[in-house]
Amino acid sequence: MRVGVDIGGTKTEAVAIDAAGAVLGEVRVSTGFGADGVVTSTVDALHRLADAVGVTPRGFESIGVGVPGAVDPLSGRVTHAVNLGLDGLDLGTELAARLGAPVSIENDVNAAALGAFHLLGRSAPSSMAYLNLGTGLAAGLVLAGRLWRGSRGTAGEIGHIPVDPAGPLCSCGQRGCLEMVASGSAVARLWPTGTSHPVRSLFEAADTGDVLAIEVRERFVDNVASAVRVLVLTVDVDDVVIGGGITSLGDPLLAAVHAVLRRWAVESAFLASLELPDRVRLAPGGLPVAAVGAALIGSTGTETGAAERKPA
Amino acid sequence: MRVGVDIGGTKTEAVAIDAAGAVLGEVRVSTGFGADGVVTSTVDALHRLADAVGVTPRGFESIGVGVPGAVDPLSGRVTHAVNLGLDGLDLGTELAARLGAPVSIENDVNAAALGAFHLLGRSAPSSMAYLNLGTGLAAGLVLAGRLWRGSRGTAGEIGHIPVDPAGPLCSCGQRGCLEMVASGSAVARLWPTGTSHPVRSLFEAADTGDVLAIEVRERFVDNVASAVRVLVLTVDVDDVVIGGGITSLGDPLLAAVHAVLRRWAVESAFLASLELPDRVRLAPGGLPVAAVGAALIGSTGTETGAAERKPA
Ligand SMILES: [Zn+2]
Ligand SMILES: [Zn+2]
Repeated sequence: MRVGVDIGGTKTEAVAIDAAGAVLGEVRVSTGFGADGVVTSTVDALHRLADAVGVTPRGFESIGVGVPGAVDPLSGRVTHAVNLGLDGLDLGTELAARLGAPVSIENDVNAAALGAFHLLGRSAPSSMAYLNLGTGLAAGLVLAGRLWRGSRGTAGEIGHIPVDPAGPLCSCGQRGCLEMVASGSAVARLWPTGTSHPVRSLFEAADTGDVLAIEVRERFVDNVASAVRVLVLTVDVDDVVIGGGITSLGDPLLAAVHAVLRRWAVESAFLASLELPDRVRLAPGGLPVAAVGAALIGSTGTETGAAERKPA
Repeated sequence: MRVGVDIGGTKTEAVAIDAAGAVLGEVRVSTGFGADGVVTSTVDALHRLADAVGVTPRGFESIGVGVPGAVDPLSGRVTHAVNLGLDGLDLGTELAARLGAPVSIENDVNAAALGAFHLLGRSAPSSMAYLNLGTGLAAGLVLAGRLWRGSRGTAGEIGHIPVDPAGPLCSCGQRGCLEMVASGSAVARLWPTGTSHPVRSLFEAADTGDVLAIEVRERFVDNVASAVRVLVLTVDVDDVVIGGGITSLGDPLLAAVHAVLRRWAVESAFLASLELPDRVRLAPGGLPVAAVGAALIGSTGTETGAAERKPA
């Protein structure tokens, strides 16, 4: 039995999957903060999961862990994860020592990409980009059925590709980055309501006919479509799967993105030839894509370039 | 002995390489126009090459052909190559029948990417993007040592990624495409001199202190650097190798691109962490990269997804 953990900023989700990738059990706990907090909540989630599926953690074949930050899959080290209060933590080694099972660490968007690929029933040689729209914007790439991390683990960092020289200044120091115009934080800035789901508030206001909201929504959706275009033109993946917190909006978001892509196809024969509307869908709703992907990474560590931290 | 052909708009270059990839012979002829013209000049080049290396074309182990246009590597068909006057030609089948050796067809930028990778001494698991700056702008990707064509053969079509909503209208129907601001045709439009090498003319004028030329050059080089940034942020290749007609400018071009990337690293800690200046170089000068790459494709047809057209 393989196990995957998705450590989010507020909650930690753990799943156990069988050899065919079917989910056998699933638990959620609150995520702790800082090195001790994160290790404790992760260990707690895995003990609960073990109970739920009737084994001990030593009975886990492998444990894969997705972390929202910069990780070194080879050493199992989290180099930086600001939302978790981590700045250098040998998470793989720590967890392997405490749980007695081999542990692999991966970036959460990469884990989600692999999870979505699996849960959508894809297999090699198919390719997919997972476009994560949450507070930020980033993508994970699965090329010919395998996770493509890039040469330094930064593949898919398209959130910091500038798309407008006259755009707002980004915290990265550049101007007009995709993340500044096509993410949850972008909408919270452009349509400040103070709610926990700014994109939902924006769509609701636009639906009531608020002219400014309609304009802000149009620009936002245009820029999400721009992120899709960057991914398809550069990597030519079979399709782009949109995931992340924003996608809880569901069909209205997808319909809006499809509408932009169809408009572009009318304006550009070149874009029309790429059939973009047929190549964009939402991640499967209600499924723990990142945790499932982490479990798959845990089981294919060497294949994807990650190394397992063996228990001492 | 494997053979590669690079069919350019004006000249056709053919090379023979040995098992280690060393060049054994090289010929050049003028490229014909239209289906008959292109087939005739290609066959002519290959007969001359056979003479030069002391065999007959039947003695070629494989023939790879790079074509500036849209090709279907699986069928060996050129679907569209406007500069050659081709609009649907079974070039692979035609050449195999006339020459009695197996033939593979590939897009010329993809061929050049693989050739540059080889000629720079790279090997798997290294990855590289080949940024072709000629009349247009496009890239070829070699990921983990293998050519990545994408799901539909359009990987690397970054020339039509818009980088400025206020930019000029592109022939593709979009506004502010990279190709409209970072290619030879872009410079010819922005700095019209009527010479055959507009970028050289622009750099010379800027070197004499012409204020407008300096400004146009700055924008051009900024946009070339933007193309590099798109490639590294999306695919995270080890490095970006700039090739194509424009690179005959040599070191002044590379120095200018490096200067922009160094400036960006000062402005953005995020970009600084990517160490972009260390990851950009020029394609090896004076070497037939596309023809050598085509020869390598011819010899690894199945590995890279291309299929050889067998002689009848
Ligand atoms: Zn940014
Ligand atoms: Zn264009």
